[in-house]
Amino acid sequence: MSDNNDFVKDITNIDENFAQWYTDIVIKAELADYADTKGCIAIKPYGYAIWECIQAYTDKKFKEVGVENVYFPVLIPESLLQKEKDHVEGFAPEVAWVTEAGGEKLDERLCIRPTSETIISTMYAKWLNSWRDLPFVYNQWCNVLRWEKETRPFLRSREFLWQEGHTIHETAKEAMDRTMQMLDIYSDVAENLLAIPVIKGVKTESEKFAGADSTYTIESMMHDGRALQTATSHYFGQNFTKPFEIKFQNREGKEEYAYQTSWGSSTRLIGGLIMSHGDNRGLKLPPNVAPIQIVIVPIAQHKEGILKKAEELKDRLSNIFRVKVDDRDKYSPGYKFNYWEMKGVPLRLEIGPRDIENNQCVAVRRDNQEKINISLDNIENEISKILSNIQKNMFEMCKKRLEEKTNDATNMNEFKSIMEKNQGFINAMWCGKKECEEKIKELTGAKSRCIPFEQKAISNKCVCCGKKADKMVIWARQY
Amino acid sequence: MSDNNDFVKDITNIDENFAQWYTDIVIKAELADYADTKGCIAIKPYGYAIWECIQAYTDKKFKEVGVENVYFPVLIPESLLQKEKDHVEGFAPEVAWVTEAGGEKLDERLCIRPTSETIISTMYAKWLNSWRDLPFVYNQWCNVLRWEKETRPFLRSREFLWQEGHTIHETAKEAMDRTMQMLDIYSDVAENLLAIPVIKGVKTESEKFAGADSTYTIESMMHDGRALQTATSHYFGQNFTKPFEIKFQNREGKEEYAYQTSWGSSTRLIGGLIMSHGDNRGLKLPPNVAPIQIVIVPIAQHKEGILKKAEELKDRLSNIFRVKVDDRDKYSPGYKFNYWEMKGVPLRLEIGPRDIENNQCVAVRRDNQEKINISLDNIENEISKILSNIQKNMFEMCKKRLEEKTNDATNMNEFKSIMEKNQGFINAMWCGKKECEEKIKELTGAKSRCIPFEQKAISNKCVCCGKKADKMVIWARQY
Repeated sequence: MSDNNDFVKDITNIDENFAQWYTDIVIKAELADYADTKGCIAIKPYGYAIWECIQAYTDKKFKEVGVENVYFPVLIPESLLQKEKDHVEGFAPEVAWVTEAGGEKLDERLCIRPTSETIISTMYAKWLNSWRDLPFVYNQWCNVLRWEKETRPFLRSREFLWQEGHTIHETAKEAMDRTMQMLDIYSDVAENLLAIPVIKGVKTESEKFAGADSTYTIESMMHDGRALQTATSHYFGQNFTKPFEIKFQNREGKEEYAYQTSWGSSTRLIGGLIMSHGDNRGLKLPPNVAPIQIVIVPIAQHKEGILKKAEELKDRLSNIFRVKVDDRDKYSPGYKFNYWEMKGVPLRLEIGPRDIENNQCVAVRRDNQEKINISLDNIENEISKILSNIQKNMFEMCKKRLEEKTNDATNMNEFKSIMEKNQGFINAMWCGKKECEEKIKELTGAKSRCIPFEQKAISNKCVCCGKKADKMVIWARQY
Repeated sequence: MSDNNDFVKDITNIDENFAQWYTDIVIKAELADYADTKGCIAIKPYGYAIWECIQAYTDKKFKEVGVENVYFPVLIPESLLQKEKDHVEGFAPEVAWVTEAGGEKLDERLCIRPTSETIISTMYAKWLNSWRDLPFVYNQWCNVLRWEKETRPFLRSREFLWQEGHTIHETAKEAMDRTMQMLDIYSDVAENLLAIPVIKGVKTESEKFAGADSTYTIESMMHDGRALQTATSHYFGQNFTKPFEIKFQNREGKEEYAYQTSWGSSTRLIGGLIMSHGDNRGLKLPPNVAPIQIVIVPIAQHKEGILKKAEELKDRLSNIFRVKVDDRDKYSPGYKFNYWEMKGVPLRLEIGPRDIENNQCVAVRRDNQEKINISLDNIENEISKILSNIQKNMFEMCKKRLEEKTNDATNMNEFKSIMEKNQGFINAMWCGKKECEEKIKELTGAKSRCIPFEQKAISNKCVCCGKKADKMVIWARQY
């Protein structure tokens, strides 16, 4: 921990160099650190506590809709990975291979899972007999590995933590309903837990998951106007169930291949949190996902009774909120204010001799720096209200940015000029051709994010080639 | 799912072939299945739900004593593994190596963590500056890999799930206190959650963890009298902090190496649960760790009002207990009784037309098959009492077995004859020499389990060589 009182000086300005600002926050807010294993990070207690909040919320939502947790092996024999053509093409280039173990060369290479469709499908084939066994609605919380060339903490680590749900169903409709249901849960997590507004839509053919029939996504906008693919839900149809022979006796007594889905969200969400809400004072956490919601900073803590009062207040509030007292005697209150602002704690309570005299404390909001005097008599209710208000305000601030940085374009000149002046999301019509997608990317750096469910008729011509187009696509530069 | 009504016939008799009985239970109770990755298993929803119960209980206890969760990379560069001599000797033979990734040969091999002392120590060295930063009390829930030659589901899988805690401290005493504190938590988990009585002690030199100064263990006895090392807590002293240069400025302003511990428990506990409590009817779960504590089986469920009543009862009980109604119309009540006994559900409630008339239901205990009529008026209290009683009774049954199958031996003839007649634990004096330990193993198959904290003066001579001995050791064949 640095002795420097001025944390703000230590961070790169958010609008000057956003990438460096991001790295500074990850390190200074003690979320994670670079590990000795190249491209990998060590997630520190404060970063992991955020992940635990996300896990707890998500897992509860999953269980409410019948998801059961399981665990499948981290190592996948090469022959399994090979079974679905698109899948192996998509993932083989970025896997890590185990070739030696227990002092011997292996007969067959084993890859560390980049995702688990193949190993899980193999087991499903073994377990499924009759329509009565269906559906399987299983999920696992685990680590995965993708050998990325360029890495960034949380956003693109070679190893990351995630959950991957894998389901099989009796009918295509049921599988599609599940795909959508899980997308809705991700949207709930993003908006209500993380205070990040999202846009729901379907990926274009070239952006979908390797092996999927269709990929649904929630897309969000970061501080700098770039997009983050926040979570995805895939409908596979029978793409995997055929090569993996996941079949069952249907209600008519005939053999049929099951219909499959998968859906995932990862520690990337922590990257999204940082880049959605942070500012020049540091991280800014929405109360619902903050490991510490309230930090109590005693003023003049050497004076009699102050620390005791701070502890009493903590005990009282701990029944409802996640609270910490910073009673370190090495640091001044001013240092502590900066320290906890850097860590993104939503609300600070200051309590000193004069506050105690007046039976009050001073609350300072992290989201807008507002100071509020609160009577100790009814403090629980007051704080509940303030925290809900912070949560709501943080969502609204992101929503406002999303709206301000979203523009329509009807031709490539418009497109380019918007992207240069106000990097953000662009709504534009698309003819459906891969060539136009590629050209747009080449000219502007923007990729198709999704064909949003909420369509708008901007024109009837492709923004790129000018030919007939009936789909509005959202485009953006991405993380 | 099998249509066979007679589950019991499908299981090998527990006293005829315990090893096969064990495998039968793992498969038939749907805890896990063999995966396509050799030596690895897929943990099914029911098995994983048990693990989630264990995790929740353990993690809560950890957090009460200040443990914080973190996550470190699964891949460890070979050079790190090499840093502590004993450690690398102990683990290198059973690791799996990643040698290719992202389409290229790697310059340095990366091993999949068999345990994380080395990678974590490297980061601790980076993070530690002053005594004010101490202690670090971090834990991770993760997967590890050890390339075992012979594997058994849960007991010895190449990949398994566990938690590993890693701490560093200012003083040796503080580190040793932490080592013991965590051993006490493991003992709490084993005895109060899993209803498995344990013996606490210290491992002999030859049985301790590779690189540890001393290893503390909780040992339990399985149905067949063999021992299971249930969890371990290691005191490292400065064995790792010196080679890894984990040093800090102490209160006198001098540089000093920190004192370290690590402690772990794994999905092996599920194996212990099966082998401690199971019988010829199947798995038997203590209520505190049972994913389903109560199964309600409607009798004559086609009759009007029966299923409704069963659901009502479930809703009422679900506020307090983990409850399921088995309303499958394909199966008879008799089939369901067997099915849920196989799954080890602690309490079955039968509710049929006559029960409803009498405002009661019939409760059947899994631990002793006792049938009890319970009035619906006060059923919550009655069931609470019954479940506590089952939990207690299951612990007592194991305790009784542990006592009955523990014997003293003063010479090798006694030792051998006891081990042949009544395989179990043997208390015997030991001179402290490795040669005697090896000879005992050679002659009887029994290894030293621990030098228990509770010593008993059996004699003053080593059971093997007859020379002076002041330590009583517990010996047993092991899993």
